[in-house]
Amino acid sequence: MADTRPIGVFDSGLGGLTVVKELISALPGEDIVYFGDTDRVPYGTKSNETIKKFAIEDENFLLSKNVKLIVAACGTVSSVAADTAKVLPVPFVEVVSHSCKSAVKVSNNKKIGVIGTSATINSGEHKRQILELCKEAEVFCQSCTLFVPLVESGLVSTDDIIVTETVKKYLTPIKEAEVDTLILGCTHYPLLSDAIRKFMGENVVLINAGVSTAAAVKDILVSGNMLNTKEKGDISCFVSDITPSFSAASSMLLGSPTEEIRVEKVDINSL
Amino acid sequence: MADTRPIGVFDSGLGGLTVVKELISALPGEDIVYFGDTDRVPYGTKSNETIKKFAIEDENFLLSKNVKLIVAACGTVSSVAADTAKVLPVPFVEVVSHSCKSAVKVSNNKKIGVIGTSATINSGEHKRQILELCKEAEVFCQSCTLFVPLVESGLVSTDDIIVTETVKKYLTPIKEAEVDTLILGCTHYPLLSDAIRKFMGENVVLINAGVSTAAAVKDILVSGNMLNTKEKGDISCFVSDITPSFSAASSMLLGSPTEEIRVEKVDINSL
Repeated sequence: MADTRPIGVFDSGLGGLTVVKELISALPGEDIVYFGDTDRVPYGTKSNETIKKFAIEDENFLLSKNVKLIVAACGTVSSVAADTAKVLPVPFVEVVSHSCKSAVKVSNNKKIGVIGTSATINSGEHKRQILELCKEAEVFCQSCTLFVPLVESGLVSTDDIIVTETVKKYLTPIKEAEVDTLILGCTHYPLLSDAIRKFMGENVVLINAGVSTAAAVKDILVSGNMLNTKEKGDISCFVSDITPSFSAASSMLLGSPTEEIRVEKVDINSL
Repeated sequence: MADTRPIGVFDSGLGGLTVVKELISALPGEDIVYFGDTDRVPYGTKSNETIKKFAIEDENFLLSKNVKLIVAACGTVSSVAADTAKVLPVPFVEVVSHSCKSAVKVSNNKKIGVIGTSATINSGEHKRQILELCKEAEVFCQSCTLFVPLVESGLVSTDDIIVTETVKKYLTPIKEAEVDTLILGCTHYPLLSDAIRKFMGENVVLINAGVSTAAAVKDILVSGNMLNTKEKGDISCFVSDITPSFSAASSMLLGSPTEEIRVEKVDINSL
Protein backbone atom coordinates (compact mmCIF):
# COMPACT_ATOMS: atom_id res chain seq x y z
CA MET A 1 0.00 0.00 0.00
CA ALA A 2 1.32 3.41 -0.90
CA ASP A 3 2.17 5.90 1.83
CA THR A 4 0.86 9.18 0.44
CA ARG A 5 2.24 11.39 3.21
CA PRO A 6 4.84 13.88 1.99
CA ILE A 7 8.60 13.82 2.52
CA GLY A 8 9.76 16.72 4.71
CA VAL A 9 12.97 18.55 3.81
CA PHE A 10 14.55 21.47 5.64
CA ASP A 11 17.56 23.75 5.39
CA SER A 12 18.81 26.97 6.97
CA GLY A 13 17.79 28.72 3.76
CA LEU A 14 17.32 27.81 0.15
CA GLY A 15 20.46 25.67 -0.44
CA GLY A 16 18.48 22.55 0.45
CA LEU A 17 16.54 22.99 -2.80
CA THR A 18 19.55 21.37 -4.53
CA VAL A 19 18.61 18.24 -2.54
CA VAL A 20 14.92 18.65 -3.46
CA LYS A 21 16.01 18.72 -7.11
CA GLU A 22 17.69 15.30 -6.68
CA LEU A 23 14.69 13.93 -4.74
CA ILE A 24 12.32 14.94 -7.56
CA SER A 25 14.61 13.20 -10.03
CA ALA A 26 14.92 9.97 -7.97
CA LEU A 27 11.35 9.90 -6.60
CA PRO A 28 9.07 11.78 -9.02
CA GLY A 29 5.83 10.53 -7.40
CA GLU A 30 6.55 11.90 -3.93
CA ASP A 31 4.94 15.01 -2.46
CA ILE A 32 7.59 17.17 -0.81
CA VAL A 33 7.18 19.77 1.93
CA TYR A 34 10.21 22.05 2.09
CA PHE A 35 11.02 24.42 4.93
CA GLY A 36 13.75 27.05 4.44
CA ASP A 37 14.60 29.11 7.53
CA THR A 38 15.31 32.23 5.47
CA ASP A 39 14.52 34.39 8.50
CA ARG A 40 17.59 33.06 10.36
CA VAL A 41 19.93 31.99 7.55
CA PRO A 42 22.90 31.35 7.67
CA TYR A 43 23.33 28.66 10.33
CA GLY A 44 26.96 27.86 9.46
CA THR A 45 28.52 30.75 11.35
CA LYS A 46 26.42 30.25 14.51
CA SER A 47 27.10 28.33 17.73
CA ASN A 48 26.26 24.62 18.03
CA GLU A 49 23.73 25.38 20.76
CA THR A 50 21.82 27.79 18.53
CA ILE A 51 21.98 25.43 15.53
CA LYS A 52 20.47 22.58 17.61
CA LYS A 53 17.66 24.82 18.86
CA PHE A 54 16.84 25.87 15.28
CA ALA A 55 16.99 22.24 14.02
CA ILE A 56 14.45 21.09 16.61
CA GLU A 57 12.08 23.92 15.64
CA ASP A 58 12.46 23.08 11.95
CA GLU A 59 11.82 19.35 12.56
CA ASN A 60 8.72 20.13 14.65
CA PHE A 61 7.36 22.33 11.89
CA LEU A 62 7.71 19.49 9.35
CA LEU A 63 6.08 17.01 11.76
CA SER A 64 3.10 19.37 11.94
CA LYS A 65 2.76 18.79 8.17
CA ASN A 66 2.35 15.03 8.70
CA VAL A 67 5.55 14.01 6.89
CA LYS A 68 6.61 10.34 6.64
CA LEU A 69 10.37 11.05 6.63
CA ILE A 70 12.56 14.07 7.37
CA VAL A 71 15.65 15.10 5.38
CA ALA A 72 18.07 17.59 6.96
CA ALA A 73 19.21 19.07 3.63
CA CYS A 74 21.75 21.22 5.44
CA GLY A 75 25.40 20.31 5.94
CA THR A 76 25.58 22.38 9.13
CA VAL A 77 22.57 20.73 10.83
CA SER A 78 23.74 17.29 9.67
CA SER A 79 27.17 17.90 11.19
CA VAL A 80 26.34 19.42 14.56
CA ALA A 81 22.66 18.69 15.25
CA ALA A 82 21.93 15.19 13.88
CA ASP A 83 21.35 13.98 17.46
CA THR A 84 18.22 16.16 17.63
CA ALA A 85 16.61 13.52 15.37
CA LYS A 86 16.84 10.74 17.97
CA VAL A 87 13.41 11.59 19.34
CA LEU A 88 11.68 11.90 15.95
CA PRO A 89 8.77 9.50 15.29
CA VAL A 90 9.71 9.20 11.57
CA PRO A 91 12.88 8.15 9.71
CA PHE A 92 15.55 10.85 9.47
CA VAL A 93 18.13 11.26 6.71
CA GLU A 94 21.00 13.72 6.89
CA VAL A 95 23.57 14.65 4.26
CA VAL A 96 26.89 13.86 5.97
CA SER A 97 26.91 10.06 6.33
CA HIS A 98 25.82 9.31 2.75
CA SER A 99 28.39 11.73 1.34
CA CYS A 100 31.12 10.06 3.39
CA LYS A 101 30.09 6.57 2.23
CA SER A 102 30.07 7.69 -1.42
CA ALA A 103 33.47 9.37 -1.08
CA VAL A 104 35.14 6.32 0.46
CA LYS A 105 33.59 4.14 -2.25
CA VAL A 106 34.83 6.20 -5.23
CA SER A 107 38.23 7.33 -3.94
CA ASN A 108 41.19 5.36 -5.28
CA ASN A 109 44.06 7.04 -3.42
CA LYS A 110 41.97 7.49 -0.24
CA LYS A 111 42.89 11.17 -0.12
CA ILE A 112 39.54 12.87 0.41
CA GLY A 113 38.79 16.59 0.63
CA VAL A 114 35.85 18.08 2.53
CA ILE A 115 34.56 21.65 2.19
CA GLY A 116 31.72 23.20 4.20
CA THR A 117 30.67 26.04 6.49
CA SER A 118 32.72 26.93 9.59
CA ALA A 119 30.36 25.02 11.89
CA THR A 120 30.46 21.93 9.63
CA ILE A 121 34.25 21.83 9.38
CA ASN A 122 34.79 22.68 13.07
CA SER A 123 32.54 19.75 14.03
CA GLY A 124 35.03 17.29 12.45
CA GLU A 125 32.06 15.04 11.66
CA HIS A 126 33.02 14.19 8.06
CA LYS A 127 36.60 13.34 9.07
CA ARG A 128 35.40 11.14 11.93
CA GLN A 129 32.95 9.25 9.74
CA ILE A 130 35.38 8.78 6.85
CA LEU A 131 38.08 7.40 9.20
CA GLU A 132 35.50 5.07 10.74
CA LEU A 133 34.74 3.69 7.26
CA CYS A 134 38.38 3.57 6.13
CA LYS A 135 41.05 4.04 8.76
CA GLU A 136 43.91 4.56 6.27
CA ALA A 137 42.13 7.47 4.56
CA GLU A 138 43.66 10.94 4.66
CA VAL A 139 41.09 13.72 5.06
CA PHE A 140 41.72 17.37 4.17
CA CYS A 141 39.12 19.85 5.41
CA GLN A 142 38.50 23.50 4.61
CA SER A 143 35.75 25.89 5.64
CA CYS A 144 34.66 28.19 2.81
CA THR A 145 32.84 31.04 4.54
CA LEU A 146 32.23 33.12 1.41
CA PHE A 147 30.73 30.35 -0.77
CA VAL A 148 27.16 30.68 0.60
CA PRO A 149 27.09 34.49 0.18
CA LEU A 150 28.50 34.08 -3.35
CA VAL A 151 25.73 31.63 -4.33
CA GLU A 152 23.04 33.74 -2.66
CA SER A 153 24.31 36.77 -4.60
CA GLY A 154 24.01 34.76 -7.82
CA LEU A 155 27.79 34.83 -8.34
CA VAL A 156 28.59 31.33 -9.64
CA SER A 157 29.98 31.85 -13.15
CA THR A 158 33.44 30.52 -13.99
CA ASP A 159 33.96 33.79 -15.90
CA ASP A 160 33.67 35.89 -12.76
CA ILE A 161 37.05 36.71 -11.25
CA ILE A 162 35.53 37.03 -7.74
CA VAL A 163 34.28 33.44 -8.06
CA THR A 164 37.53 32.04 -9.45
CA GLU A 165 39.70 33.86 -6.91
CA THR A 166 37.50 32.79 -3.99
CA VAL A 167 37.57 29.17 -5.17
CA LYS A 168 41.35 29.40 -5.56
CA LYS A 169 41.79 30.91 -2.08
CA TYR A 170 39.91 28.13 -0.30
CA LEU A 171 40.79 25.13 -2.47
CA THR A 172 44.53 25.62 -3.04
CA PRO A 173 45.54 23.57 0.05
CA ILE A 174 43.06 20.82 -0.89
CA LYS A 175 44.41 20.69 -4.43
CA GLU A 176 48.02 20.60 -3.22
CA ALA A 177 47.11 17.62 -1.02
CA GLU A 178 46.30 15.75 -4.27
CA VAL A 179 42.86 14.52 -3.23
CA ASP A 180 41.00 12.47 -5.88
CA THR A 181 37.57 13.04 -4.27
CA LEU A 182 36.01 16.18 -2.83
CA ILE A 183 32.86 16.25 -0.70
CA LEU A 184 30.69 19.34 -1.23
CA GLY A 185 29.66 19.47 2.43
CA CYS A 186 27.09 22.25 2.07
CA THR A 187 23.94 22.08 -0.03
CA HIS A 188 24.68 25.45 -1.62
CA TYR A 189 27.95 24.29 -3.11
CA PRO A 190 26.65 22.25 -6.10
CA LEU A 191 25.93 25.63 -7.70
CA LEU A 192 29.68 26.28 -7.68
CA SER A 193 30.50 22.85 -9.18
CA ASP A 194 31.69 24.26 -12.51
CA ALA A 195 34.12 26.67 -10.89
CA ILE A 196 35.32 24.05 -8.40
CA ARG A 197 35.78 21.43 -11.15
CA LYS A 198 37.67 23.90 -13.33
CA PHE A 199 40.10 24.63 -10.50
CA MET A 200 40.47 21.08 -9.14
CA GLY A 201 40.69 19.40 -12.56
CA GLU A 202 38.47 16.80 -14.25
CA ASN A 203 40.10 13.88 -12.41
CA VAL A 204 38.79 14.89 -9.01
CA VAL A 205 35.31 13.45 -8.29
CA LEU A 206 32.93 15.94 -6.65
CA ILE A 207 30.45 14.37 -4.20
CA ASN A 208 27.10 16.21 -4.31
CA ALA A 209 25.29 15.35 -1.08
CA GLY A 210 21.92 15.66 -2.81
CA VAL A 211 22.50 12.66 -5.09
CA SER A 212 23.61 10.23 -2.38
CA THR A 213 20.96 11.52 0.03
CA ALA A 214 18.15 11.04 -2.50
CA ALA A 215 19.35 7.47 -3.08
CA ALA A 216 19.29 6.83 0.68
CA VAL A 217 15.74 8.22 0.95
CA LYS A 218 14.63 5.93 -1.90
CA ASP A 219 16.15 2.90 -0.15
CA ILE A 220 14.23 3.65 3.06
CA LEU A 221 10.91 4.20 1.26
CA VAL A 222 11.30 1.05 -0.84
CA SER A 223 12.32 -1.18 2.04
CA GLY A 224 9.54 0.22 4.27
CA ASN A 225 6.95 -0.08 1.50
CA MET A 226 6.35 3.65 1.87
CA LEU A 227 6.64 4.83 -1.76
CA ASN A 228 4.01 7.13 -3.19
CA THR A 229 2.93 5.55 -6.46
CA LYS A 230 1.29 8.58 -8.07
CA GLU A 231 2.73 9.97 -11.29
CA LYS A 232 3.87 13.44 -10.27
CA GLY A 233 4.28 14.74 -6.74
CA ASP A 234 3.51 18.24 -5.47
CA ILE A 235 6.13 20.55 -4.00
CA SER A 236 5.12 22.88 -1.17
CA CYS A 237 7.63 25.42 0.00
CA PHE A 238 7.48 27.15 3.40
CA VAL A 239 9.92 29.86 4.40
CA SER A 240 10.29 31.96 7.53
CA ASP A 241 10.86 35.10 5.44
CA ILE A 242 10.02 35.88 1.82
CA THR A 243 13.17 37.77 0.94
CA PRO A 244 13.50 40.05 -2.10
CA SER A 245 15.85 37.55 -3.79
CA PHE A 246 13.64 34.52 -3.09
CA SER A 247 12.37 33.79 -6.62
CA ALA A 248 15.71 34.20 -8.36
CA ALA A 249 17.59 32.16 -5.77
CA SER A 250 15.05 29.33 -5.61
CA SER A 251 14.87 29.00 -9.42
CA MET A 252 18.66 28.82 -9.62
CA LEU A 253 18.97 26.27 -6.82
CA LEU A 254 16.14 24.07 -8.01
CA GLY A 255 17.38 24.31 -11.59
CA SER A 256 13.92 25.14 -12.97
CA PRO A 257 11.31 27.89 -12.77
CA THR A 258 9.41 27.86 -9.49
CA GLU A 259 6.08 29.27 -10.70
CA GLU A 260 4.37 25.96 -10.04
CA ILE A 261 5.55 25.74 -6.45
CA ARG A 262 3.35 26.97 -3.63
CA VAL A 263 5.29 29.27 -1.29
CA GLU A 264 3.98 30.26 2.12
CA LYS A 265 5.51 32.23 4.97
CA VAL A 266 5.48 30.80 8.50
CA ASP A 267 6.54 32.37 11.79
CA ILE A 268 8.97 29.74 13.06
CA ASN A 269 9.44 31.49 16.42
CA SER A 270 5.79 31.26 17.40
CA LEU A 271 5.20 27.56 16.64
CA MET B 1 22.71 67.11 37.00
CA ALA B 2 24.31 64.25 35.16
CA ASP B 3 22.15 61.50 33.68
CA THR B 4 24.08 58.33 34.52
CA ARG B 5 21.82 55.95 32.56
CA PRO B 6 23.63 54.23 29.68
CA ILE B 7 23.27 54.88 25.96
CA GLY B 8 21.72 51.89 24.15
CA VAL B 9 23.10 50.87 20.76
CA PHE B 10 21.92 48.01 18.56
CA ASP B 11 22.74 46.39 15.23
CA SER B 12 21.87 43.23 13.33
CA GLY B 13 25.28 41.92 14.29
CA LEU B 14 28.64 43.35 15.20
CA GLY B 15 28.96 46.08 12.53
CA GLY B 16 27.42 48.59 14.93
CA LEU B 17 30.59 48.38 17.01
CA THR B 18 32.13 50.80 14.49
CA VAL B 19 29.55 53.32 15.77
CA VAL B 20 30.35 52.41 19.40
CA LYS B 21 33.99 53.19 18.61
CA GLU B 22 33.01 56.72 17.51
CA LEU B 23 30.69 57.17 20.52
CA ILE B 24 33.54 56.27 22.91
CA SER B 25 35.75 58.79 21.16
CA ALA B 26 33.14 61.60 21.23
CA LEU B 27 31.60 60.78 24.64
CA PRO B 28 34.21 58.98 26.76
CA GLY B 29 32.24 59.31 30.03
CA GLU B 30 29.13 57.50 28.80
CA ASP B 31 28.20 53.95 29.74
CA ILE B 32 27.12 52.04 26.64
CA VAL B 33 24.90 48.97 26.39
CA TYR B 34 25.32 47.28 23.00
CA PHE B 35 23.02 44.64 21.57
CA GLY B 36 24.12 42.66 18.48
CA ASP B 37 21.51 40.29 17.06
CA THR B 38 24.16 37.75 15.97
CA ASP B 39 21.54 34.99 16.12
CA ARG B 40 19.61 36.51 13.21
CA VAL B 41 22.29 38.48 11.33
CA PRO B 42 22.19 39.60 8.52
CA TYR B 43 19.10 41.83 8.34
CA GLY B 44 19.99 43.44 4.99
CA THR B 45 18.74 40.58 2.82
CA LYS B 46 15.45 40.11 4.70
CA SER B 47 11.97 41.54 4.10
CA ASN B 48 10.93 44.92 5.53
CA GLU B 49 8.26 43.24 7.67
CA THR B 50 10.83 40.96 9.32
CA ILE B 51 13.34 43.79 9.81
CA LYS B 52 10.69 45.90 11.60
CA LYS B 53 9.75 43.00 13.88
CA PHE B 54 13.41 42.48 14.80
CA ALA B 55 13.98 46.22 15.36
CA ILE B 56 11.07 46.43 17.85
CA GLU B 57 12.46 43.43 19.77
CA ASP B 58 15.94 44.96 19.83
CA GLU B 59 14.61 48.32 21.04
CA ASN B 60 12.55 46.65 23.79
CA PHE B 61 15.62 44.76 24.97
CA LEU B 62 17.59 48.02 25.30
CA LEU B 63 14.67 49.70 27.14
CA SER B 64 14.80 46.84 29.65
CA LYS B 65 18.38 48.00 30.39
CA ASN B 66 17.13 51.49 31.39
CA VAL B 67 18.87 53.37 28.57
CA LYS B 68 18.48 57.13 28.17
CA LEU B 69 18.80 57.16 24.36
CA ILE B 70 18.75 54.49 21.62
CA VAL B 71 21.04 54.41 18.58
CA ALA B 72 20.07 52.16 15.65
CA ALA B 73 23.67 51.53 14.55
CA CYS B 74 22.43 49.61 11.54
CA GLY B 75 21.94 51.03 8.06
CA THR B 76 19.21 48.53 7.30
CA VAL B 77 17.09 49.27 10.39
CA SER B 78 17.64 53.02 9.92
CA SER B 79 16.43 52.77 6.31
CA VAL B 80 13.36 50.57 6.61
CA ALA B 81 12.37 50.50 10.30
CA ALA B 82 13.02 53.98 11.72
CA ASP B 83 9.25 54.41 12.21
CA THR B 84 9.34 51.71 14.90
CA ALA B 85 10.99 54.37 17.11
CA LYS B 86 7.93 56.65 17.15
CA VAL B 87 6.58 54.96 20.27
CA LEU B 88 9.89 54.93 22.18
CA PRO B 89 9.95 56.83 25.51
CA VAL B 90 13.57 57.96 24.92
CA PRO B 91 15.35 59.89 22.12
CA PHE B 92 16.24 57.79 19.06
CA VAL B 93 19.14 58.35 16.67
CA GLU B 94 19.55 56.45 13.42
CA VAL B 95 22.43 56.48 10.96
CA VAL B 96 20.78 57.54 7.69
CA SER B 97 19.72 61.15 8.30
CA HIS B 98 23.03 62.31 9.78
CA SER B 99 24.99 60.68 6.95
CA CYS B 100 22.79 62.44 4.40
CA LYS B 101 23.22 65.82 6.10
CA SER B 102 27.02 65.37 6.20
CA ALA B 103 27.14 64.32 2.56
CA VAL B 104 25.13 67.29 1.32
CA LYS B 105 27.33 69.60 3.41
CA VAL B 106 30.68 68.36 2.09
CA SER B 107 29.79 67.66 -1.55
CA ASN B 108 30.85 70.33 -4.02
CA ASN B 109 29.50 68.90 -7.26
CA LYS B 110 26.34 67.52 -5.54
CA LYS B 111 26.96 64.11 -7.08
CA ILE B 112 26.62 61.78 -4.11
CA GLY B 113 27.08 57.99 -4.02
CA VAL B 114 25.35 55.68 -1.52
CA ILE B 115 26.29 52.07 -0.85
CA GLY B 116 24.49 49.69 1.52
CA THR B 117 22.72 46.35 1.88
CA SER B 118 19.95 45.33 -0.53
CA ALA B 119 17.23 46.34 1.94
CA THR B 120 18.87 49.73 2.54
CA ILE B 121 19.26 50.56 -1.15
CA ASN B 122 15.82 49.19 -2.11
CA SER B 123 14.23 51.45 0.53
CA GLY B 124 15.44 54.54 -1.37
CA GLU B 125 15.64 56.34 1.97
CA HIS B 126 19.07 57.96 1.46
CA LYS B 127 18.09 59.26 -1.98
CA ARG B 128 14.78 60.63 -0.65
CA GLN B 129 16.48 62.43 2.26
CA ILE B 130 19.34 63.84 0.15
CA LEU B 131 16.90 65.24 -2.43
CA GLU B 132 14.84 66.77 0.37
CA LEU B 133 17.96 68.57 1.63
CA CYS B 134 19.20 69.55 -1.85
CA LYS B 135 16.84 69.09 -4.75
CA GLU B 136 19.50 69.58 -7.44
CA ALA B 137 21.66 66.72 -6.06
CA GLU B 138 22.28 63.63 -8.17
CA VAL B 139 22.30 60.42 -6.14
CA PHE B 140 23.88 57.16 -7.31
CA CYS B 141 23.00 54.07 -5.26
CA GLN B 142 24.46 50.57 -5.23
CA SER B 143 23.75 47.57 -3.01
CA CYS B 144 26.92 45.65 -2.11
CA THR B 145 25.68 42.26 -0.95
CA LEU B 146 29.11 40.70 -0.47
CA PHE B 147 30.66 43.47 1.66
CA VAL B 148 29.21 42.26 4.99
CA PRO B 149 30.33 38.62 4.44
CA LEU B 150 33.79 39.91 3.42
CA VAL B 151 34.16 41.93 6.62
CA GLU B 152 32.78 39.12 8.77
CA SER B 153 35.32 36.75 7.16
CA GLY B 154 38.10 39.20 8.05
CA LEU B 155 38.78 39.94 4.38
CA VAL B 156 39.44 43.68 4.30
CA SER B 157 43.04 44.06 3.13
CA THR B 158 43.80 46.10 0.02
CA ASP B 159 46.31 43.39 -0.90
CA ASP B 160 43.59 40.74 -1.21
CA ILE B 161 42.43 40.30 -4.80
CA ILE B 162 38.98 39.11 -3.66
CA VAL B 163 38.56 42.40 -1.78
CA THR B 164 39.81 44.60 -4.61
CA GLU B 165 37.76 42.80 -7.27
CA THR B 166 34.59 42.91 -5.16
CA VAL B 167 35.08 46.64 -4.51
CA LYS B 168 35.68 47.17 -8.24
CA LYS B 169 32.57 45.19 -9.19
CA TYR B 170 30.21 47.21 -7.03
CA LEU B 171 31.82 50.65 -7.20
CA THR B 172 32.64 50.97 -10.91
CA PRO B 173 29.26 52.58 -11.82
CA ILE B 174 29.55 54.95 -8.82
CA LYS B 175 33.08 55.96 -9.84
CA GLU B 176 32.04 56.48 -13.47
CA ALA B 177 29.28 58.81 -12.25
CA GLU B 178 32.06 61.07 -10.87
CA VAL B 179 30.65 61.42 -7.36
CA ASP B 180 32.78 63.53 -5.00
CA THR B 181 31.14 62.09 -1.84
CA LEU B 182 30.26 58.50 -0.95
CA ILE B 183 28.03 57.50 1.97
CA LEU B 184 29.03 54.21 3.62
CA GLY B 185 25.43 53.25 4.32
CA CYS B 186 26.17 50.16 6.38
CA THR B 187 28.06 50.12 9.67
CA HIS B 188 30.28 47.25 8.50
CA TYR B 189 31.69 49.25 5.60
CA PRO B 190 34.18 51.50 7.47
CA LEU B 191 36.35 48.37 7.73
CA LEU B 192 36.62 48.42 3.92
CA SER B 193 37.49 52.16 3.84
CA ASP B 194 41.07 51.60 2.69
CA ALA B 195 40.05 49.42 -0.25
CA ILE B 196 37.16 51.74 -1.16
CA ARG B 197 39.38 54.86 -0.94
CA LYS B 198 42.09 53.19 -3.05
CA PHE B 199 39.57 52.43 -5.79
CA MET B 200 37.58 55.69 -5.67
CA GLY B 201 40.63 57.97 -5.32
CA GLU B 202 41.67 60.38 -2.58
CA ASN B 203 39.41 63.17 -3.82
CA VAL B 204 36.21 61.34 -2.96
CA VAL B 205 35.07 61.98 0.63
CA LEU B 206 33.81 58.86 2.43
CA ILE B 207 31.00 59.49 4.92
CA ASN B 208 31.30 57.12 7.90
CA ALA B 209 27.88 57.05 9.59
CA GLY B 210 29.49 56.46 12.98
CA VAL B 211 31.18 59.87 13.10
CA SER B 212 28.12 61.93 12.20
CA THR B 213 25.87 59.79 14.39
CA ALA B 214 28.13 60.18 17.44
CA ALA B 215 28.09 63.97 16.92
CA ALA B 216 24.28 63.91 16.78
CA VAL B 217 24.10 61.88 20.01
CA LYS B 218 26.40 64.38 21.72
CA ASP B 219 24.18 67.30 20.60
CA ILE B 220 21.10 65.65 22.10
CA LEU B 221 22.80 64.85 25.41
CA VAL B 222 24.30 68.32 25.73
CA SER B 223 21.09 70.17 24.88
CA GLY B 224 19.06 67.92 27.18
CA ASN B 225 21.58 68.21 30.01
CA MET B 226 21.90 64.43 29.96
CA LEU B 227 25.69 63.98 29.75
CA ASN B 228 27.39 61.52 32.06
CA THR B 229 30.25 63.42 33.66
CA LYS B 230 32.31 60.48 34.87
CA GLU B 231 35.82 59.98 33.47
CA LYS B 232 35.52 56.64 31.69
CA GLY B 233 32.33 54.83 30.78
CA ASP B 234 31.69 51.08 30.84
CA ILE B 235 30.82 49.08 27.76
CA SER B 236 28.42 46.13 28.13
CA CYS B 237 27.89 43.92 25.13
CA PHE B 238 24.87 41.62 24.70
CA VAL B 239 24.51 39.26 21.76
CA SER B 240 21.84 36.73 20.78
CA ASP B 241 24.52 34.17 19.85
CA ILE B 242 28.17 33.90 20.85
CA THR B 243 29.55 32.80 17.49
CA PRO B 244 32.97 31.20 17.01
CA SER B 245 34.27 34.33 15.27
CA PHE B 246 32.91 36.75 17.91
CA SER B 247 36.19 37.83 19.56
CA ALA B 248 38.12 38.35 16.36
CA ALA B 249 35.28 40.21 14.66
CA SER B 250 34.48 42.46 17.63
CA SER B 251 38.14 43.41 18.15
CA MET B 252 38.48 44.32 14.49
CA LEU B 253 35.27 46.35 14.40
CA LEU B 254 35.89 48.18 17.65
CA GLY B 255 39.51 48.79 16.69
CA SER B 256 40.84 47.61 20.05
CA PRO B 257 41.04 44.41 22.12
CA THR B 258 37.72 43.51 23.73
CA GLU B 259 39.01 41.77 26.85
CA GLU B 260 37.67 44.55 29.06
CA ILE B 261 34.18 44.34 27.65
CA ARG B 262 31.54 42.23 29.38
CA VAL B 263 29.76 39.99 26.88
CA GLU B 264 26.54 38.18 27.73
CA LYS B 265 24.19 36.06 25.65
CA VAL B 266 20.46 36.82 25.64
CA ASP B 267 17.57 34.92 24.07
CA ILE B 268 15.94 37.68 22.02
CA ASN B 269 13.00 35.46 20.99
CA SER B 270 11.83 34.85 24.53
CA LEU B 271 11.86 38.44 25.78
